[in-house]
Amino acid sequence: MKNSIRDNEQRKAGIPTIKRLPQYLRILKDLEKQDVETVSTTFLAQELNIEPIVVRKDIASTGAEGKPRIGFTTKEAIKKIEHFLGWDNVTEAFLVGAGNLGSALMGYQGFQNHGLKIIAAFDKDDKKIGQEIHGIKVLSMEKLPNLAKRMHIHIGVICVDAEHAQEVSDIMVEAGIKAIWNFTPVKLKTPDDVVSQKEDLSSGLAVLSVKLASKLGFVDIEEV
Amino acid sequence: MKNSIRDNEQRKAGIPTIKRLPQYLRILKDLEKQDVETVSTTFLAQELNIEPIVVRKDIASTGAEGKPRIGFTTKEAIKKIEHFLGWDNVTEAFLVGAGNLGSALMGYQGFQNHGLKIIAAFDKDDKKIGQEIHGIKVLSMEKLPNLAKRMHIHIGVICVDAEHAQEVSDIMVEAGIKAIWNFTPVKLKTPDDVVSQKEDLSSGLAVLSVKLASKLGFVDIEEV
Repeated sequence: MKNSIRDNEQRKAGIPTIKRLPQYLRILKDLEKQDVETVSTTFLAQELNIEPIVVRKDIASTGAEGKPRIGFTTKEAIKKIEHFLGWDNVTEAFLVGAGNLGSALMGYQGFQNHGLKIIAAFDKDDKKIGQEIHGIKVLSMEKLPNLAKRMHIHIGVICVDAEHAQEVSDIMVEAGIKAIWNFTPVKLKTPDDVVSQKEDLSSGLAVLSVKLASKLGFVDIEEV
Repeated sequence: MKNSIRDNEQRKAGIPTIKRLPQYLRILKDLEKQDVETVSTTFLAQELNIEPIVVRKDIASTGAEGKPRIGFTTKEAIKKIEHFLGWDNVTEAFLVGAGNLGSALMGYQGFQNHGLKIIAAFDKDDKKIGQEIHGIKVLSMEKLPNLAKRMHIHIGVICVDAEHAQEVSDIMVEAGIKAIWNFTPVKLKTPDDVVSQKEDLSSGLAVLSVKLASKLGFVDIEEV
């Protein structure tokens, strides 16, 4: 990731804060479109249904400074959050597995606003190789290692079946990829210098199922 | 959700536990396929890279009982976890928004193992209405309210653009839907008797971005 301008001030935040930052960003960008110049902590807190103190701490951790009775300057808060997340620079990424989910991710325009641009997809299926999905070329899996090294790609997205996830991860790591976005249910084993983030739809469905059962009185969800 | 056999024993679990249950389930089912009859806490802990005490507590909260030096019976643990999650009965659901992501979700076979069956999709786009995607019919949005009521559908999946999310949610609630799986970045406003679960890809991407920046020394992630 091109973070060259980012290392002058060391910032600190917890995972829950990091997960909320894109939500503030979305609201702030909506306000910016409507030419709203400042935004109060209270407004953000109400929109997201969280405590104002949490909002204040979250945004402060990115370096944006709120003023009493005025709040945050919309533009400055956007800039600081994007900078904190490294989303002010677009990073190029490779995706492996051009099936349904892979195609959906390739077509998802939002990622570019979030600093991620999928520039090539890879698959083992001869029928998919050579095709273009949402303007992104699908290449043979064998081409990944050389291309990743030559183009200095550091982010990989894995959308293959669970049984091939670790194999694809190993190939990515060998090719110099340092961050893996994992859309399979498999917990990948990667070296210490590689980070990964798993998107597990079954976890979300589990929470929804239990929330519903809890509403119906079958289960208790503990507050943590 | 058909939870009629579930209310004889009230169970309790926190959200992090609930999110981990599908991961245990996946490993347990793999072991069942290989005819492995018992599984130790240590094995599950190693596979998922978490503490054995956490595994023991998580699985105990579903009612499965481990034995010293033997561990859990594979089949019993599967049964208890599925029962806890309400995944031993398949619940029918409606999906709104048959775009890229919606189509991917319709094609995802895994949901049926997780108690969810998408039986119809709805869209406003005339080009999509009447089509069949992965064997699921796409219907006109106007048909949703009557069909949902007639078929007693309680789960809705929202895959539309952010700007239409709240409108679709309101229609679903009006039609009697009690649980909404929300794939838009919008925080939905729903009545107290309706539960919702948001899958926010931008949160995951934010965590991945910051993990990578942290590895490169630009940011510190706080342990919480």
